[in-house]
Amino acid sequence: MSILSNYALDQWVQVQTGLVSIPSALDASTVAQTGSQGLDFASMLQHARSVGGPALRAMTFHERARLLKGLAEAIMARREELYALATHTGATRADNWIDIEGGAGTLFAYASKGRRELPNARILIDGDTEVLSKRGGFIGQHVYMPLQGVAVHINAFNFPVWGMLEKLAPTLLAGVPAIVKPGTATAYVTEAAFRVMIATGLLPAGALQLIVGATGDLFDHLTGQDVVSFTGSAQTAAKLQSHPVIAREGVRFVAERDSLNAAILGPDATTGSPEFALFVKEVVREMTVKAGQKCTAIRRALVPASLIDEVQAALKAALAKVVVGDPAREGVTMGALVGSAQLADVREKIAMLSQEAWMVHGDGEPVVNTDERGAFIAPVLLRTDDPDNADLLHEVEAFGPVATLMPYRDLAHAVTLANRGKGSLALSIVTHDPGVATDLLLGLGSFHGRIHILNRDCARESTGHGSPLPVLVHGGPGRAGGGEEMGGIRGVKHYMQRTALQGSPDMLSAVTGTWLTGSSRREGEVHPFRLRFGELPIGYTKKTAARTITLEDIEHFAQFTGDTFYAHMDEEAAKASPIFGGRVAHGYLILSFAAGLFVDPAPGPVLANYGLESLRFIKPVKPGDSIQAALTAKEKSAKTPEMGEVRWNVAVANQDGELVATYDLLTMNAV
Amino acid sequence: MSILSNYALDQWVQVQTGLVSIPSALDASTVAQTGSQGLDFASMLQHARSVGGPALRAMTFHERARLLKGLAEAIMARREELYALATHTGATRADNWIDIEGGAGTLFAYASKGRRELPNARILIDGDTEVLSKRGGFIGQHVYMPLQGVAVHINAFNFPVWGMLEKLAPTLLAGVPAIVKPGTATAYVTEAAFRVMIATGLLPAGALQLIVGATGDLFDHLTGQDVVSFTGSAQTAAKLQSHPVIAREGVRFVAERDSLNAAILGPDATTGSPEFALFVKEVVREMTVKAGQKCTAIRRALVPASLIDEVQAALKAALAKVVVGDPAREGVTMGALVGSAQLADVREKIAMLSQEAWMVHGDGEPVVNTDERGAFIAPVLLRTDDPDNADLLHEVEAFGPVATLMPYRDLAHAVTLANRGKGSLALSIVTHDPGVATDLLLGLGSFHGRIHILNRDCARESTGHGSPLPVLVHGGPGRAGGGEEMGGIRGVKHYMQRTALQGSPDMLSAVTGTWLTGSSRREGEVHPFRLRFGELPIGYTKKTAARTITLEDIEHFAQFTGDTFYAHMDEEAAKASPIFGGRVAHGYLILSFAAGLFVDPAPGPVLANYGLESLRFIKPVKPGDSIQAALTAKEKSAKTPEMGEVRWNVAVANQDGELVATYDLLTMNAV
Repeated sequence: MSILSNYALDQWVQVQTGLVSIPSALDASTVAQTGSQGLDFASMLQHARSVGGPALRAMTFHERARLLKGLAEAIMARREELYALATHTGATRADNWIDIEGGAGTLFAYASKGRRELPNARILIDGDTEVLSKRGGFIGQHVYMPLQGVAVHINAFNFPVWGMLEKLAPTLLAGVPAIVKPGTATAYVTEAAFRVMIATGLLPAGALQLIVGATGDLFDHLTGQDVVSFTGSAQTAAKLQSHPVIAREGVRFVAERDSLNAAILGPDATTGSPEFALFVKEVVREMTVKAGQKCTAIRRALVPASLIDEVQAALKAALAKVVVGDPAREGVTMGALVGSAQLADVREKIAMLSQEAWMVHGDGEPVVNTDERGAFIAPVLLRTDDPDNADLLHEVEAFGPVATLMPYRDLAHAVTLANRGKGSLALSIVTHDPGVATDLLLGLGSFHGRIHILNRDCARESTGHGSPLPVLVHGGPGRAGGGEEMGGIRGVKHYMQRTALQGSPDMLSAVTGTWLTGSSRREGEVHPFRLRFGELPIGYTKKTAARTITLEDIEHFAQFTGDTFYAHMDEEAAKASPIFGGRVAHGYLILSFAAGLFVDPAPGPVLANYGLESLRFIKPVKPGDSIQAALTAKEKSAKTPEMGEVRWNVAVANQDGELVATYDLLTMNAV
Repeated sequence: MSILSNYALDQWVQVQTGLVSIPSALDASTVAQTGSQGLDFASMLQHARSVGGPALRAMTFHERARLLKGLAEAIMARREELYALATHTGATRADNWIDIEGGAGTLFAYASKGRRELPNARILIDGDTEVLSKRGGFIGQHVYMPLQGVAVHINAFNFPVWGMLEKLAPTLLAGVPAIVKPGTATAYVTEAAFRVMIATGLLPAGALQLIVGATGDLFDHLTGQDVVSFTGSAQTAAKLQSHPVIAREGVRFVAERDSLNAAILGPDATTGSPEFALFVKEVVREMTVKAGQKCTAIRRALVPASLIDEVQAALKAALAKVVVGDPAREGVTMGALVGSAQLADVREKIAMLSQEAWMVHGDGEPVVNTDERGAFIAPVLLRTDDPDNADLLHEVEAFGPVATLMPYRDLAHAVTLANRGKGSLALSIVTHDPGVATDLLLGLGSFHGRIHILNRDCARESTGHGSPLPVLVHGGPGRAGGGEEMGGIRGVKHYMQRTALQGSPDMLSAVTGTWLTGSSRREGEVHPFRLRFGELPIGYTKKTAARTITLEDIEHFAQFTGDTFYAHMDEEAAKASPIFGGRVAHGYLILSFAAGLFVDPAPGPVLANYGLESLRFIKPVKPGDSIQAALTAKEKSAKTPEMGEVRWNVAVANQDGELVATYDLLTMNAV
């Protein structure tokens, strides 16, 4: 019998006292023992803060992204070990694919987002520069910097790998060390995946620690630089969130809790419509995947009263085909609950729900086969015809293959019923009618963290009601906990502090490593296009010669390009315009001439101009005006060992020094 | 003697029992009585949710922005009434300017930001569309929608007008009704300003309510759609935040609490330097403005050990010039604390701080003049030479004209000391050395919500250490509460729910009112430039004819514009480039020809092309390739009764249908 190990202060620590046995979901035999009694939790926190944090903060976002990629590759390379262990959780191979490869996929997604959407830097700029004084000598710039504390991740049992990795990916990318506490029932799978990551040797000391038992007095030592990210029951969340240290120290608390997720069938989706069939398929899938042990699973199926009997018949027919049993057996489509305790809990909840609804499929009794002594139960579909007078149906989550079918009268009633869940993680609207979707959305929007609109147009490509995705936020308001996870870079910010910097443009440029509005433009002997990526200083500027734009230029450009817009070609019409007051140069002519003024033609470090951002034409350029450009290196981000992205600010002024156009130019430069 | 009124269910309600007297800061006479006993708080919440919320949500962001502007104008028009009342708070005219005109200014700033940075719509798009399937038929889009609950604003006494308005501005702009509870000591000023707003008649029923006494059982009735925004002591915050309903229902709780703000004098800022003088001036200003009753005031002045005696001497000299007394008297530069209770509290805190430091200016005794019986106290400067062994100095906030001077050894020590405040609202670094600022920032960043870097370059334009600004976030981590207020549109989002929408591009375009990546492009008979703003449907598209780009075009464009970059002009060099592999057309030539293809020249509803965003050149265009553009109406936002902004997506493809460039074009169109 194996005893799971904690990972504390960069050492594997197996404790021998206070151990708890973890039973197999399939036959109740003990898979492992686990415990954390005697660990020094205060030291673990301090180790993360004093060793792990500094090491992670010394890395750039891109370096951390590469770290995530390495961890993901390791998980993928050793995934079969994890699949083998995970059979004891009762899950099918398809369920475990979501957990294991979905977990690695989340790391990959963050590795990719980190490289594409974050700078190769340690500070993240947030939003535009705010000019705070009339003369522009005092500006503000928001930045994000990593918290200097620890992320304490308290995970649920249902996704032992994905649940760990979906929290770790944004945390590590932010530059924050973590302490992971898995759900006990499946902690052996988490521990194995954690070992795979440690074995890569990629993680700096102190970056990751693992507690496979209770967290002891850990909460007593939290500070305002720490974050608790919790997934689990509302009851446990409320208990933890009410720990006096949380409020006293201002500890961030991100919770993902209970959720009475709903799916709504649109009134347009009558029998025989593709949406009717999609709804039935989605509800059955959500009831049976992972035996319904998913925080996003559909618990309430809301259908037009006129369709409820037909929906019920279709759901029953589909549920009748579900084969419950040991996933290793041929033909099994739904596995076990995670253990007998979970089975007892689900049965208790079914009994509660039965006070307000009746069972139309399944009986709530354990499924017992001669060769299987595990936590098996068949899917249970309940029904009520009076959802307005129900309370438990909107409040009690049976965390298993259980859902309730209920009728609604009209869209407003559907909104009321769906929102009686008091906040959910995911809601599906199954309709092909944009009007139905819009009406529902306006009523539902702020109660649900993710809204999945399913119909014939997207069904083949939909990732499904129940799948949180790394690029979308996962979390919901109210009962769902109010937290947000993932959502791409949004999730990274939960582990960083946003700070407003104020000062002179030059000072803020220096501390952020980015040329900000109003900063000095420093010219040098060499044309900036002749400087390699590494040599080019931020703020380095090329001020060009002036070029007069003649009426002939404008007419020539118009004929050449075909852009004969009246403002350029028709003096009388242009005079009548309050904006132009006479013929003006094409915006594209200004851009083209500006490039002609600043481009250095010979091959050199600038490999390509691949984009342009935030162009504004500020003042018209009239025939006879002359323009002059200042090209300034604004921001640099290394992309590969061979090249880096340079963002240039271009300011084009007229003969009076008035700004006529400003934009950012993006080039790829050789290192 | 006046009794303040509550404003509940759109009625002024004066209660007669359980009243509390509010004394004048100047002579302890009673200014008003106040109380809220017997109010039906549950009904107030319900009224806001069922009447105020729907009315505000029916308005667009721009309509709400106009509402804010109207409220600001009313405050400004009647500001002298507020100044007159506010003399009883003990504040000087300059202090009250911050409160009254600063409050109106915050409304104006939000009115302006709302019109410039938010769409004229009810739903706010958040971030880019995420393509969720390989074929692009299933996408994700984050949106913000207003919470359907109530914002409960619990304000501090020190800024009775600004404190109310800095919370109301983002709340109302978000579309959420509010219930305001002012700090009792100055509730008469808040009530007067509130009356001014109600008297405008601009506010929809249920949008605003006022509780001038205790909040009774209000917290018992909060839900997960409500937000509590609290400003005050850490102790009260922790008590409120621990109310069981907060965790149980997942109520958002935004706190701004105690803050032991620090200012750090850089080691470069030796005696005689401009920064030395600026530091002294800033510390004295922060001690004396509002008699130090500011959550952002400097409480700890950190200076290099070698400079501490000189700094002390300079601070003492400056503090000696402060004249304390009734602000109505000629020459007075610092007023009273808000009342005798506050005076007693400040004196108690000074006594605590004196256990770890000694007084070098002031004595902590009340200042009593024959004609003044109010809550006057002279500024108190304390000093310690052993800040490492101090605890109270980093924890106890004397909310009055009190600060402690302390030495640091090196920058790392300064960081350690500053961060011992465990999170603050505002920190000043006074240095002219970017290296000093950078080192401090990397250590300090995540502990402070705002960092003000002060030096000779920005001093004349700086808004000062202690001034929260509507465009920057106000709040800080840890002890400061972990909340964020204002920060421009960031603050609006605290009152909205972010939801991830998933579905087909056409469906998500329909429900968001914005053309999203992958949606249908619908062509019509009429050129889109001939449609007025109101007539132009989202998704309406002009697909242009094709145009071949010849080598002659490229050479001609190069000669004409002067852009003779080798990739366009030198076949051999371009061939050697891994990006181009041969001569390619200028990006600006592609843009210009695309415009030539889609522009409709005659005068019409399109008034001007004023900008361009998110341009990416995706694939090179070689001589002989032909290009074709699709111009699609993507987003519309009415700006004035006469015109609106249209954002167009332009997709340029080659003869094989491959995308070569994509960008958004901005035009101003006649309504």
